[in-house]
Amino acid sequence: MLPVNRVPRDNWYVAAFSAEVSTVPLARTICGDAVALFRTAAGRLAAVEDRCIHRGMPLTHGGQCSGEIIRCPYHGLEFDAEGNCVKIPGQDRIPAQAKLITYPIIEQDELIWIWMGDRLKAAGTVPPEHPAHRDARWARASTIFLHIEADWQLVNDNLLDLTHLPFVHARTIGSDAVSHTANANVETRRIERRIEYNIHMPDVDPPPMYRQAFPFTGKIDRWQEMVFVPGVFRLWTGGMDAGTGALDGKRDGGVQFKTLHAITPSTATSCYYHFTRSINFGLEDSDLHRRLHEASVMTVEMEDKHVIEAVQQRSLQYPDRPFIDTRWDVGPRHARRIVEEMVEEEEMQSNSSRPMTSV
Amino acid sequence: MLPVNRVPRDNWYVAAFSAEVSTVPLARTICGDAVALFRTAAGRLAAVEDRCIHRGMPLTHGGQCSGEIIRCPYHGLEFDAEGNCVKIPGQDRIPAQAKLITYPIIEQDELIWIWMGDRLKAAGTVPPEHPAHRDARWARASTIFLHIEADWQLVNDNLLDLTHLPFVHARTIGSDAVSHTANANVETRRIERRIEYNIHMPDVDPPPMYRQAFPFTGKIDRWQEMVFVPGVFRLWTGGMDAGTGALDGKRDGGVQFKTLHAITPSTATSCYYHFTRSINFGLEDSDLHRRLHEASVMTVEMEDKHVIEAVQQRSLQYPDRPFIDTRWDVGPRHARRIVEEMVEEEEMQSNSSRPMTSV
Amino acid sequence: MLPVNRVPRDNWYVAAFSAEVSTVPLARTICGDAVALFRTAAGRLAAVEDRCIHRGMPLTHGGQCSGEIIRCPYHGLEFDAEGNCVKIPGQDRIPAQAKLITYPIIEQDELIWIWMGDRLKAAGTVPPEHPAHRDARWARASTIFLHIEADWQLVNDNLLDLTHLPFVHARTIGSDAVSHTANANVETRRIERRIEYNIHMPDVDPPPMYRQAFPFTGKIDRWQEMVFVPGVFRLWTGGMDAGTGALDGKRDGGVQFKTLHAITPSTATSCYYHFTRSINFGLEDSDLHRRLHEASVMTVEMEDKHVIEAVQQRSLQYPDRPFIDTRWDVGPRHARRIVEEMVEEEEMQSNSSRPMTSV
Ligand code: FES
Ligand code: FES
Ligand code: FES
Repeated sequence: MLPVNRVPRDNWYVAAFSAEVSTVPLARTICGDAVALFRTAAGRLAAVEDRCIHRGMPLTHGGQCSGEIIRCPYHGLEFDAEGNCVKIPGQDRIPAQAKLITYPIIEQDELIWIWMGDRLKAAGTVPPEHPAHRDARWARASTIFLHIEADWQLVNDNLLDLTHLPFVHARTIGSDAVSHTANANVETRRIERRIEYNIHMPDVDPPPMYRQAFPFTGKIDRWQEMVFVPGVFRLWTGGMDAGTGALDGKRDGGVQFKTLHAITPSTATSCYYHFTRSINFGLEDSDLHRRLHEASVMTVEMEDKHVIEAVQQRSLQYPDRPFIDTRWDVGPRHARRIVEEMVEEEEMQSNSSRPMTSV
Repeated sequence: MLPVNRVPRDNWYVAAFSAEVSTVPLARTICGDAVALFRTAAGRLAAVEDRCIHRGMPLTHGGQCSGEIIRCPYHGLEFDAEGNCVKIPGQDRIPAQAKLITYPIIEQDELIWIWMGDRLKAAGTVPPEHPAHRDARWARASTIFLHIEADWQLVNDNLLDLTHLPFVHARTIGSDAVSHTANANVETRRIERRIEYNIHMPDVDPPPMYRQAFPFTGKIDRWQEMVFVPGVFRLWTGGMDAGTGALDGKRDGGVQFKTLHAITPSTATSCYYHFTRSINFGLEDSDLHRRLHEASVMTVEMEDKHVIEAVQQRSLQYPDRPFIDTRWDVGPRHARRIVEEMVEEEEMQSNSSRPMTSV
Repeated sequence: MLPVNRVPRDNWYVAAFSAEVSTVPLARTICGDAVALFRTAAGRLAAVEDRCIHRGMPLTHGGQCSGEIIRCPYHGLEFDAEGNCVKIPGQDRIPAQAKLITYPIIEQDELIWIWMGDRLKAAGTVPPEHPAHRDARWARASTIFLHIEADWQLVNDNLLDLTHLPFVHARTIGSDAVSHTANANVETRRIERRIEYNIHMPDVDPPPMYRQAFPFTGKIDRWQEMVFVPGVFRLWTGGMDAGTGALDGKRDGGVQFKTLHAITPSTATSCYYHFTRSINFGLEDSDLHRRLHEASVMTVEMEDKHVIEAVQQRSLQYPDRPFIDTRWDVGPRHARRIVEEMVEEEEMQSNSSRPMTSV
């Protein structure tokens, strides 16, 4: 496996969008492990280590499912969806240890979730829901998969301090800096292993993407309401004409967005970013979706990718230099503490059945 | 030098095809050492370290022979084919230690062979012959040089387990899996530091390349007969109409191939692959040669390169995970043991004059 | 910071040409440190660490000056030209330690010089002058910035042994080898931490670039007069009709060049090369300048880059193999000793305020 930094393995991460997984296996490196994701002909979903037990061939380099098995592209060993070797060409006996590592996997809300740690601890748990993916009142206007060349925690930092919007995203979703900081009502709370981070911005100019989405004529009340658990952010945002009660919960009219940001650790310096944005307006207007996606949403994501990867580079060059926090770093600090607690808890559990340890 | 894995240096390796070596020096990295291969104007063949003794300039970056010397492209020091410095511009005295390392070298059967270890042990030994290169009954239909981004032993593994043919090479030289395994007569023997690996496949469908080469009308008897010593494989293969006695040694008609696979360790994760295929049919038909080469032989080699390099990647990611052998891994196991014995023998000989040690 | 080899930090290095530095900050890595160079709106020149104190964002990835401050492109922190944080959006208190590292900087002769070490030792010192840059009798015919993928000392070696000219630069500035060595009068002297290296070449054929510059009709007397201090070479060269007294100091007519080679250590295997060439003929003839630049000067620089980077590669592969000096290596040996003495002196001064130590 590849080295990863502090990563809880006893946790659900998004491995892929449902639509990405088929009978041709998909390669992902998650928490440092090479994983092959596939569906059998009968639709059975599986996640196995992407390394044949025989000579180490990656199954995803030319392998594919045939009926209920997946065949190694090198010498043709066959495995079922539980990872058991079921055929060695020309050999009757199959050794008992001829078994691929498998990972618990759940398909839910058009997302494939994976559990890289102790499978006993996965039992009975479920990943967070994302009902906007199955609610007819919301249209999925953007679906983005990015490979970020940075430690996943730098993406967490990015999302948990939204004061970067006026600087990084001035062309799309940033209002002016004062509206995002001094004039904003910001509340950040840790509840167990969850962070709630809510920002209410009264009486602000609508940022470019909001104007693109809706014909606002004056100031708006704007909100950003986030729930974070390690691996996934649910972010609900929107804006309505100023003074019409949006910040007190009356949210009719204007624009609303339900956004999913799933951040999955890959290696010590890379992660996957599965993103969707659902909207509650222009539900049938696929042309509007396309315009919003191209002009704004992709821009936002690429702006963040640029910034986060630049920070990663400096962090590799200056691993020991301290950071100086601002008052907006409550969320990033909470998140790092939650992650650290989860990793320490796993390290203390000596009966852990984790298939591999992090380096 | 660059790091290499377990590599016997007291051994003949193919450094180049004869046609590649001229008065413009050729760069190769062999067993981790940077080597310059060249011929002087008088035709003298030489292999010297590709690093000038003065400031370390690679002679192959712009140097060339002038008469019987090779000149460094930086400050013009001149060396003869024995590596002696014979001129320093503007300086009369030449220091005694001003000498390039040289390597024993032999040209034979249109191949340049090199000995990277103790030159005393090279004395009196000769590389394996490949008479097909100088026999008018055989036409050289393919000559291929590849740089494989993998440890040389992964190429040895590939060639010593030909059950990969139905999976990796189904489009060219693979028959069905049962013909290559359960129904085949396979014999693998180690004799001193040589492996003989013979496969007889009675009554099988001719694979695509065989049909491309010859108008077979039904089943064939097919054979693959290999001799391996570290550094080079001689592989004789062919097919004839089924039941006409080919597997008992009556080999007239049908198609026969004499193939050379010379695998030369370069760095810990790369090697050179010198390959030729000689055929005993259509000797004058250069158009047939070209078609076979392009449609089949290059495809086979690139398919193997892809597989071997993918295995190398996994092997770097998971250096400690074990392999599980099948019954077809007798040859790969023998080869690794032979290599290990040779390396251990070299390590024990404290009087070794090896110019450098492996890292 | 990135690792560097033996590099004196208490020294002036060229960081940039004056024209490169504006209100959009310029990124350089000097002595392993990431540096941002900029001018404020009022023209104030500054060099600060290119890493925001907040989350490590490089200021040069999208930042720019606004009035007298530079703003971080991530969350908008603002810094003045002394590196003090003067604004955190939405926060009143600014922590005392919120300060970027700054470096002493001097603009002189159209060059920006930087001091990476103890700023107390910089006080009262000045970088070497290069008056040709501000003398109307000299025209700047070439200005070149190169990033060399090699340790800076390999560039020092290159310039301090000009016997490479007949071999590396035969197409441009190389005369024949005998003229550059046996027949030349060469004088190399170390004076404190300076090297003077003078070569007089009587009665030689003018090399291609000299013929391109001037209609010489016969042999010439040629001279190369160099002064080196770590970080910068001043090289005055030229040629006049043979026997007209040039080597005795009568230098009217013919061609003369005043060349600046500023070599600034970047990482352990890279450096910056700021180069200018001023000429005392055809002062107004910009077409001649262009022709000389394109046909000769750029060629010379790329030839040196090729050679130096090739030597670097071998030096990484064979870090422990010795070099064998010729009688022309007096200069390179002096230079390495001067550099070593400077580094040792810095290491002994325990009160050093160097912001970072070399790895
Ligand atoms: S490596 Fe998978 S079958 Fe051999
Ligand atoms: S490096 Fe070869 S002559 Fe100087
Ligand atoms: S990283 Fe510079 S303001 Fe946050």
